[in-house]
This record gives sequence, structure tokens and C-alpha cells, in this order.
Amino acid sequence: LTEDSLVAALRAIVETRAADSGIPTRIVLGIGDDAAVWQPSRSHLSVISTDALVEGVHFELGSMSPSAVGKRAMAANLSDIAAMGARPVLATVALGVAPGTDEAWILDCYRGMSELAATFRTAIVGGDIVRAPAMVLSLTVVGEVSRSRLKRRDGGRPGDVLAVTGALGASRAGLELLRRSLPVAADARAAALAAFETPTPRVAEGRYLAASAHVHALMDSSDGLSTDLARLARSSACGATLCALPVHPAAVAVARAAGHEPRDYALDGGEDFELIAAVSARGFGHLARRFATAFGKPLLRLGHLEAELGLRIAVDGGAADVLQPAGWDHLRRSTGSG
Amino acid sequence: LTEDSLVAALRAIVETRAADSGIPTRIVLGIGDDAAVWQPSRSHLSVISTDALVEGVHFELGSMSPSAVGKRAMAANLSDIAAMGARPVLATVALGVAPGTDEAWILDCYRGMSELAATFRTAIVGGDIVRAPAMVLSLTVVGEVSRSRLKRRDGGRPGDVLAVTGALGASRAGLELLRRSLPVAADARAAALAAFETPTPRVAEGRYLAASAHVHALMDSSDGLSTDLARLARSSACGATLCALPVHPAAVAVARAAGHEPRDYALDGGEDFELIAAVSARGFGHLARRFATAFGKPLLRLGHLEAELGLRIAVDGGAADVLQPAGWDHLRRSTGSG
Repeated sequence: LTEDSLVAALRAIVETRAADSGIPTRIVLGIGDDAAVWQPSRSHLSVISTDALVEGVHFELGSMSPSAVGKRAMAANLSDIAAMGARPVLATVALGVAPGTDEAWILDCYRGMSELAATFRTAIVGGDIVRAPAMVLSLTVVGEVSRSRLKRRDGGRPGDVLAVTGALGASRAGLELLRRSLPVAADARAAALAAFETPTPRVAEGRYLAASAHVHALMDSSDGLSTDLARLARSSACGATLCALPVHPAAVAVARAAGHEPRDYALDGGEDFELIAAVSARGFGHLARRFATAFGKPLLRLGHLEAELGLRIAVDGGAADVLQPAGWDHLRRSTGSG
Repeated sequence: LTEDSLVAALRAIVETRAADSGIPTRIVLGIGDDAAVWQPSRSHLSVISTDALVEGVHFELGSMSPSAVGKRAMAANLSDIAAMGARPVLATVALGVAPGTDEAWILDCYRGMSELAATFRTAIVGGDIVRAPAMVLSLTVVGEVSRSRLKRRDGGRPGDVLAVTGALGASRAGLELLRRSLPVAADARAAALAAFETPTPRVAEGRYLAASAHVHALMDSSDGLSTDLARLARSSACGATLCALPVHPAAVAVARAAGHEPRDYALDGGEDFELIAAVSARGFGHLARRFATAFGKPLLRLGHLEAELGLRIAVDGGAADVLQPAGWDHLRRSTGSG
């Protein structure tokens, strides 16, 4: 039972039922992308995404502040909206409260969520509070985007350049630091912990990329590059070759101290919340230059999409190897290096 | 720590933060009603509600089919949309999967959700699947309503007639039947179990009531009449007197067999998902006649709002007593008769 196979089965149930009952097709995009899309009025698209965090699975109460837990949950959802090229507008929060949780924890968690939401001009408008055996945060964020700027993950074409908005692996490194004591320099430690605890969703970058017609597909890298790249390529009916792997310096430092391969953190770690884009080869150079000017950081080239299905890796000038998706499957433990 | 006090504290955090950062007020209605409301375009309002069910708190895996669990979760969310006078459009589902849950359970649960959603022309468009220590279903439903038909819970006025779309207490009776073996006639048993396991959200009734300018306030009775009536009255800066209590026949039969007071099931049981309306005294008679013709069932009179704050009960011609809200508080065990 993998997440992708289960999602496919659920999608079949839902779509058959909807087709049978003649539900009007105001739904532009259903299950299977970073977010779903509908059309509330003629001129306009709305985007919705739901993402849940569970204590003991996605975070440990002992090792993270309630504010960081709240920020992390909000970041994951905002990242999904960013991955559609949309602007977040509002959020709802379903909070499952574990026995013995004090009110201060809940209030601090909300403070964290509100703070990050406000940074992106997003309002928390409601939700539900229930008792639960462990803390559960299930957030839903709604955004909006004009029809011409909506970016799906299935629009990639053979020959497109694959690019990413930042180096990868730092979040996985932060998780490692929370799990055990490692001799790592202070700046790498701080960067890794911040990447894990208070990641920044790439909302501005997503809207910037969405404005370019050269960007054919967009998604976030929340489940790990190897898994998410495979999804983007498969959705676009393409294969992909990864020719460069931008590993975050903090991931290099922590992985070495932990006796792990830094590239595994970047490939399979997940939760970096960078955006992956498929960009027309013709438009990439110009877009990358403009992006660097706008954000003061490069749009990093990862490789390219191609007609031959499957995922390949050919970094450091070596021959291409098959790349196995080994990122986060929400129904299994991570099969990464941890 | 009660739900209402916690929600008030969270609301303060969220609204202060939003005010500080100058979030544009596209948000028409935030925390504190059945659903939140925003304005995606000039002509149009969207409505969003999130509601979570947790195994061991809201349902037991052993006593309910997965399809019924799914239907119940969907019904609770559709009911919140109905309580705004809105039409549901789409839903997202965050599913927390407990260890050892088989794929068949998940698929059947989705079949139940999809079936009820399709009945109300609502599409399930996405969500998230995560591991969790117990089954958790957190649903979000988005609906739409024209600005003139939106019904909040804070619009009631002194003198308004309080009315309800159906008799109460059957869901609480169904829960009792799942908890223990009781000698109850087959038809009452079937009605009580159906009310608990597969409640019907009053979507059509909500839209009908929303079309009348005589309806000043609307909410659903999901947490129990005593609790929800107190919320409606307090939101409307009114008090209320309950003069008639329509107890469902199945609630009478089960409560008697269980040695409980039937009126406690109707007052405090909750999860009936009927709609409570505050209707102008002048318009009530006409509206109730039209409602009866449209739906083949009466719009039942409960009592009235008044200027004097507080909740009173004066059924069976007796003197008015103070009525204590004793319905479902999501952070405590029900203080009802169970």
C-alpha cells in the first residue's frame, strides 16, 4: 500500500461517483496536483489545498516549540498554493488536541500559524477543535490565480529545463540534528534547524514563475526531489534526467557528521518546500537571469525532461543511472538515509 | 478549558495578527460562525467550513461501517455550509490512517463520503493522507452563496421566532443503541441508527430559508440544542426562551428503554444536523406554510428571542426555568445524559 497507489484508487472512486451524478464541471482540477482548482466566477480561479501534520509522525512535541509546529504546518500548505502559481488568501485549521495538552501550547501554536500566515497576507478564518489521541493539525488554504497563470504539474514537455528555486536537503539535516547530537558548526546547525522548523514557502517565487508562459509545469518539492520529480515527469507523460543536484551547504555539513551521503538528503529528504519548474529550453536563460535579479538568488538548473519515460541521474559527468524515487511516502516511513 | 473560551482566545490571536499586518478585508466573516465567508469576486461569496472526526472520540471502528463514518463526516461539513444558506461545491479530505487499517476500509470510507457528496452535487477534489495513531477524518467543504442570501448566526433580533427544521434527539438515541443492547421496537431502532450513522444535512432547507428576508439568523444544531441556541442568542446579543421541544419519536423510545429523560436527548444530544432559524414574528406564519408545502414536513416552532440575555425553558406550560447549555463541548466529554 503506497500513497500514490491509494490516491489513484481514491481518485477513481471519487471521479466515477461525480461523473455518475452529473456534478457540474466548475472543478478545473481535482485530485492529483499540489492543490485543486475551481472556478467561482467567470474571470477567476480559486485554488484549495489540505495538508495534515501528526504528532509522532511529522513532529515530536518534545523537540519542537508549539510555534514552530504551527509555522511548519502553515508553510506546507502555503507551499502547495505557491506551487500552483497562486496567491494564498485564507486558511482553516482543524486541531486535534491530545490529552494533557495545555492551553498555552495551543495558543502558541496558533501564534506561529498566524505569524507565518500574516507574512503572506493570509487570514485564518476558522476551523474545528476536537479531542484526539495525539496532536493533529489539518490545515486547508485557499488561494486565487488568474486562469492564464495557473501552473499544473502535468504541463511539462520533452526538452524542458528542470529548475529549482533553492538548494535541497537542509530540512532533512535539521531533522537529523533533532534526532541526535552531532558535531556541526554553529551556522550550518542554525540553517538546518531553521529549514526544518520554520521553512519558508516560496509564494513570491511561485507567483513570479507563474507569470512566465515559458514555465510549463510547477510543483513543490515537499516529498523529496526523487519522488516529486518522478511525479512531475509521470504527470507530464515524460521522463527526466537529473544532471545537477544542488545540495544545501548545511545538508553537506550535517550528513558528513552523521556518516550519511549528502546527496541522499537532497534527493530523498523532502520538506524543503522549494519549487520545481519545467521551463522551455528557449526561455530558461532569460527567465533565470530575471529571477536572479528579482530574488537575489539563482534559479538552479537540475536537468531536463525528455520523451523517454523513467527517471535518470547523471551528475558529476558520469553515465546516466536509473534514479529510484525514495522520498517521503505518507503511508510508510521514509526510505531515505535516516 | 472549554471550547468556546479557547475559540475566543484563538480568535483574538488570529484577528490581532491579521489587523497588524494589514490583511485586506476580502474576508466577510471569520472565526465564530458555522463557516467562514470571503469574496472571491465582486458578485459572489464563497463559504468554507472544516470539521474533523476522530476515532475513539466521535466514532468507534468496531460499531460503525467505514462507509457510515465517511458519510457522517461529510454530513457534518455539508450541514455547516447549509447553515450559512449556501450551496456546497467541493470538499477536501485529510485522512489520518491508524496502524493496521486496511486499504478496503479507506476505500469504503471514501465511497461513503463520495456518495453523500454526490447527492448534494459536491465534488471531492483533493486532500492529504497521513499516518496517525487513530483514524482521523478532517474535511473541508467550500460552498457559494449570493451576498443577499448569506445567513449568519448573529442576525437574530428580540421577538424573532426560533424554529427548527426537524425533531431532535434521534442521533443521541442511535449512539445509545450502539453502546448497549436495549429493547426498542424495530422502526424506532432503525430511525435512531440512521440518524446517528447517516444523518442528512439540510442543504435544500438551508437554501430555502436563506431565500427569505424574514430569516434573520441560521445555524445548525450539531452540538446540541441547548448549546447551539445559547450560541445563536449570545451572537445576536439576545436571550432566548424555549417554549416547545420537538423530541424525535425514536429518541423517546430509546431514552425510555435506557432509563433516560427523552428531553435530555433533544436538548443536549447534538449531531442532529437540523437547522435552527430566527425568523421575524411577522413573517413566520407565511414562511412555515410555504416550507411545509415545499418539504412535506413542518418548520417547527421552538420559542423566541428576547432582549433579556440568558437561556430559559418554559415547556409544557410551566414557569420559565434557566436552561443550562449542556451539549457537546469538543474539548470535554459530553455532559449530556449518556
